[in-house]
Amino acid sequence: MSVTERKTRPHGDARRRTVLTVATELFSQRGYNAVSIADVAKEAGLSQAGLLHHFPTKRALLLAVLQERDRGGDAPTPHGVDFLQAFTDALRHNDATPQLVQLFALLSAESISEDHPAHEWFVERYDTLVAELTAEVAAAVDPDKLPAGIDAETLARWIIALADGLRTQALLSPESFVRADSVEAFLAVLRPYLRAEDSEDPGTVGIPDGY
Amino acid sequence: MSVTERKTRPHGDARRRTVLTVATELFSQRGYNAVSIADVAKEAGLSQAGLLHHFPTKRALLLAVLQERDRGGDAPTPHGVDFLQAFTDALRHNDATPQLVQLFALLSAESISEDHPAHEWFVERYDTLVAELTAEVAAAVDPDKLPAGIDAETLARWIIALADGLRTQALLSPESFVRADSVEAFLAVLRPYLRAEDSEDPGTVGIPDGY
Repeated sequence: MSVTERKTRPHGDARRRTVLTVATELFSQRGYNAVSIADVAKEAGLSQAGLLHHFPTKRALLLAVLQERDRGGDAPTPHGVDFLQAFTDALRHNDATPQLVQLFALLSAESISEDHPAHEWFVERYDTLVAELTAEVAAAVDPDKLPAGIDAETLARWIIALADGLRTQALLSPESFVRADSVEAFLAVLRPYLRAEDSEDPGTVGIPDGY
Repeated sequence: MSVTERKTRPHGDARRRTVLTVATELFSQRGYNAVSIADVAKEAGLSQAGLLHHFPTKRALLLAVLQERDRGGDAPTPHGVDFLQAFTDALRHNDATPQLVQLFALLSAESISEDHPAHEWFVERYDTLVAELTAEVAAAVDPDKLPAGIDAETLARWIIALADGLRTQALLSPESFVRADSVEAFLAVLRPYLRAEDSEDPGTVGIPDGY
């Protein structure tokens, strides 16, 4: 690595981060469709050429924003009931940064159009989320205890839908209720359907304090 | 009324309807922020001046689109359990026109920003919907049967959130499940909490066939 590279890399990284922060802010306020590369460059204090050096297209910038904001932590993934608890913990954590919550609300709605550059990304994100949550719900609930016609996938879709739908209500009227509390109350209603603690698969059924 | 007025009125009405149809289409595909008056005028085959004659601002056009699409029918409003059944019937009816469903998904997300011209409209729409549904849920359920910590407003928020959240999932993956069926299954899960049919207020508790 040359001296020049060593010197400029940190500047480049800092600039890249500034662009991502500014793009996140503008996309979450107005949506992807209504924001131009020129808007982001201006707000980030860069020339358009300077911005395009880091992100060659607006689409590449969008995908970088989504990737950046959807990274999981390094903690090991819990399973079954613990996973459901971790899900509400994550909602509570996310709600501390309403701008990012708004970003996902707005981009997921925009991306319903098949020609939106994040369409495939959101289709896959929801497919993965539904599959993952379905597996964890299946590990947590006793199918014999579920009401007729309700399966693990239905419950998984409800939990994801509640998190998304209550997000809209909470962002429009932030004083009216706490989203994570409401989702947690829903999970508490599922308690009668959980596997007994002394089931054959005790690894998945520990109910944490305060669940 | 002059002869001229009588002759031009139907043309004016037809033009107004064309503009509303085009605006609905463009707003539902790209969002309000990314669509200009010039885009709508071009697509509707009008000059900008011609469009502004009917809708003096883009904001006025948006509010006309929302008002037009959110009109209730003329049928009398049912109450209690019948209202909940009517709610899923309305979802099923709406899902037959996915473009309008997408319009509300996208505009409600955009309108979270306080400077969006439909912000107040959506805040009021959700406040009204939550209040109305809370009253109907309260008429349908027996508070003594509800799990601890769950009240009528919580259930009302869940039902609205399910309808909105499942909308995103169904629009992204139309083949995966039927939104109205899923919401109907949720209402069926509430059955143990309903007032007995022989309660003191029989007018609100009749459970329709197939509920």
